[in-house]
Formats: sequence, C-alpha cells, structure tokens
Amino acid sequence: MSDLSDDGFLDGRLRVLQPRRGFRSGADAVMLAAACPAAAGQAVLELGCGAGVASLCLGWRVADLRLAGLERQPDYADLARRNAAANGIAMQVLTGDVALPPAALRAMAFDHVIANPPYFLGGTPAPDGGRALARQEQTPLAVWIDAGLRRLRPGGVLTLIQRADRLDAMLEALSGRAGSMAILPIAGRAGREAGRVILRAQKGGRGPLRLLAPFVMHRAPAHPGDREDLTPAASAVLREGLPLTTLFAKVS
Amino acid sequence: MSDLSDDGFLDGRLRVLQPRRGFRSGADAVMLAAACPAAAGQAVLELGCGAGVASLCLGWRVADLRLAGLERQPDYADLARRNAAANGIAMQVLTGDVALPPAALRAMAFDHVIANPPYFLGGTPAPDGGRALARQEQTPLAVWIDAGLRRLRPGGVLTLIQRADRLDAMLEALSGRAGSMAILPIAGRAGREAGRVILRAQKGGRGPLRLLAPFVMHRAPAHPGDREDLTPAASAVLREGLPLTTLFAKVS
Repeated sequence: MSDLSDDGFLDGRLRVLQPRRGFRSGADAVMLAAACPAAAGQAVLELGCGAGVASLCLGWRVADLRLAGLERQPDYADLARRNAAANGIAMQVLTGDVALPPAALRAMAFDHVIANPPYFLGGTPAPDGGRALARQEQTPLAVWIDAGLRRLRPGGVLTLIQRADRLDAMLEALSGRAGSMAILPIAGRAGREAGRVILRAQKGGRGPLRLLAPFVMHRAPAHPGDREDLTPAASAVLREGLPLTTLFAKVS
Repeated sequence: MSDLSDDGFLDGRLRVLQPRRGFRSGADAVMLAAACPAAAGQAVLELGCGAGVASLCLGWRVADLRLAGLERQPDYADLARRNAAANGIAMQVLTGDVALPPAALRAMAFDHVIANPPYFLGGTPAPDGGRALARQEQTPLAVWIDAGLRRLRPGGVLTLIQRADRLDAMLEALSGRAGSMAILPIAGRAGREAGRVILRAQKGGRGPLRLLAPFVMHRAPAHPGDREDLTPAASAVLREGLPLTTLFAKVS
C-alpha cells in the first residue's frame, strides 16, 4: 500500500493517510464519530476501523478515550496505527476478523462500539483488493452487530451508520438484545428519502424506539456543481467536528 | 351503544356515527386511507375497522372498491354497516377476531389490507369497555400483521399506521414475508421526532426498504391554542381527502 493520499478531515484538523485507490473514508465516518455519545475516559471500540478516520475524529473531539480498532486487512490496520500516531491520538489497533475477533479483544469490554459495516455497492468491483474487500459484504450485518453487542458492557451503546435500506436487517439483529434505540435518518436534501441511517442502541436497554427528524446534508434543492452547499448543521459536524449528540437527546 | 356523535371527516364529505365515549377514530384513520394505493375495482380489507372511518375515507376516494372490514366488537361492526349505508359506500363488515378470522374471510384474498392495530395508550383505561378493548393491546401486533399477510394475494400491499416506537416490532413481523417496504414517518411538527409511522409492504416483495422524508402535520413551532395550524399537505389529506400515494412514489 504505497500510493497514499494525505487527506484532511474536520477542516484539516485531522490529517489521515488513505490509499488513493483503495477504500476511502468520507462523510459517513465523520458522521459516525459525531453520533457516538462517548464521554471522557470511556472505552470505545471501532469494528472495521479501516485507516482509522471515525475513531480519530472521535478521539479528536473527546479527551482521554481508550480507543481500540479491529481491522481485518493488515495494511489498513498499519495505516490506522500510523494515522493515530501522526495525530497524537492513542489508539490500539488489532488485526483480525469481526466474525472471529482475536482473543485479546474478546477479553475486553467497552462503553461504546461504533461501526460502519461494509456493504456491496453494486457495479463492477474495483481492481484494488482492499476496496473490494471493504465494500463487498462478506460478513453479514448480523455478525457485525453480534460482535459489537458482545464487546459492550451492560448498558453500553452501539452506534452504527448504514444504508437506509438495511434498517430492517439492523433492527432484526438487535431484537431482544438491545433497546432504547434511536434512528437518525440522513437525507441528502430536505424532503428526500434517507440514504443513510445512524442507529444507536443500548445493550439491554428497555426504552422505546425513537425515529428522529432527518439530518439534512445539503442545502440546495439541486446540486450546484462543485460549489459547497452543506447545510449549517452538516458543516458544523463535517468541518467543525461538532457532535450529533444533542439530536439524540430527549426533547420534552 | 346509544350515545353517538355524528362526526364529519374530509371536511364533512363523510358523516360518521361514533360513540361519544368509546373508541373514536381521528386523523390516524384518515391518514391510513390516504396511504393505501388501492385502484378502482380492487379488493381491500380493513382489520379492526371500528366504526369504519378508514375504509369509508378510502371508498370515498377510490371508485368501485370491494371493501371488507373485520371488527371484533359487534356494536362497532353494526356502526360500520350503518355508516357505510349512510354514505352510500358498499362495505361488507364481518364480526370476528383478527387472531381467528371467520371462515368466510379466510376464503377471500385481497389486493390491499389496511390496519391501525390498537395499542395501549397508558394511563387509566376509560370506563367504556369498547374504548378499553380497542386501545389496549390484547392481540399482539405480530398477529395483526400475520393475519393481514395471509389475506393478501401474492404481490398485494399491506398498509399500517402505528406508533413510531413500534417500528421494530412491525419490521420483525414482516421479516421474510414481505418486502419493497416504505416507511413514512409522521411528525407533529417540522424537526420533531416521529409520533406515528405509516408502513407499506408488499407480500413477497423483493425491493429495498425505503425510509421516506417525514410528513409534517402542524405548521407552527408551538401549538397556537385552538387555531387551525395544519400544514398545507396535512390539510390536503385530512380536509380534501387527497391521497399520500405520491409520497411513496419512487423519485428518480
């Protein structure tokens, strides 16, 4: 993995090396980090951390986290370690498969687990093996969710970002094991159907499911070419690194 | 059931007798009818039809439907028959339980099934037995969904309105038996979380799940006392009887 780009996230507050033609993290990873309600001092695991973007965004925002990442592809795991070190954020990256986590990880419990499980995008797989592996679903979503729930302490919180059309599969995998769920639809523009959802669930939680108002990414009704058109809320998350956690807060 | 009120729906286009102190249909029933994509000549079954409001709104909108309703409580079934006759809409109302439908119904197949399954609202049950029966969940949601799917022809469409916090239970009951689902969140005001969801699913459908933009009922950020504050879209549905079906249409 030699052909790397040095990408800025959070308006350049974070610099991350990513393969030019492999799997590249983008807005989804930043949104995932923004949705995780981790507090200072807590332990957070990212399943399938890739080059580390989501965990590092979270580590940039919240002090004194104990960050761990699990990544199947050794070269991405190496990149995550380099990226963490370069940004001065402590992160333990383990190489291993979500379907069969290493024993060292199975001995640990976390306050939070975050994940952006891969999904098959359709079309022709990219020639790069890393991208193909990351984008094609080889491990079922239910296995990711099971692995996440197992690593959470009781009452711990699982935060996922995923394609909206997989909401049913996510809820099915969580059924009976997690509750107090909140679903945040992510829409490209106001009035459009959701392209992504962020789902938060508490292990063993018993509160009711909540379907939140959508988070809208872009301002204009149609895409104005290359011009920046993020909504103020999306800009606050993607550029300033603000959390989404107030959106999940219960409104009286 | 002698103490009845004569209520107008669809801006008085439909007149419906309802018990003053029993279970009374409101906006949910009208929204359910608006969401059902029935076309002229098709067969539609309403599970738990009460006094018939949802079916009669649908019969008012779409010509030549073969409408059938199933209602457990004989006095509500009688009311539904009276209301159908008074509005000049043909509707066959069967008395029976969703958990064990009468044989006459089990012999029939429908293009559409609609339902607003009851749920326990909390608080003190009303002294009126009808309301208590209708509002407290005595038959699990999964039984309603199973009964609906059984009565649909292959490719037929189930349309439900339900409290948003039961989205997970709805999806679980539909899992593996219906697809091409669309979820329409219903929010009291813009930016608020959904209070209700309308879920449409096709029996045996294989299309992806879609999470639509919310339908917003009220215009003002805070309730202005008794003043009318429906959004134009909600007014079009509740007052003019317009369908919600364009919201479910696939937007390119």
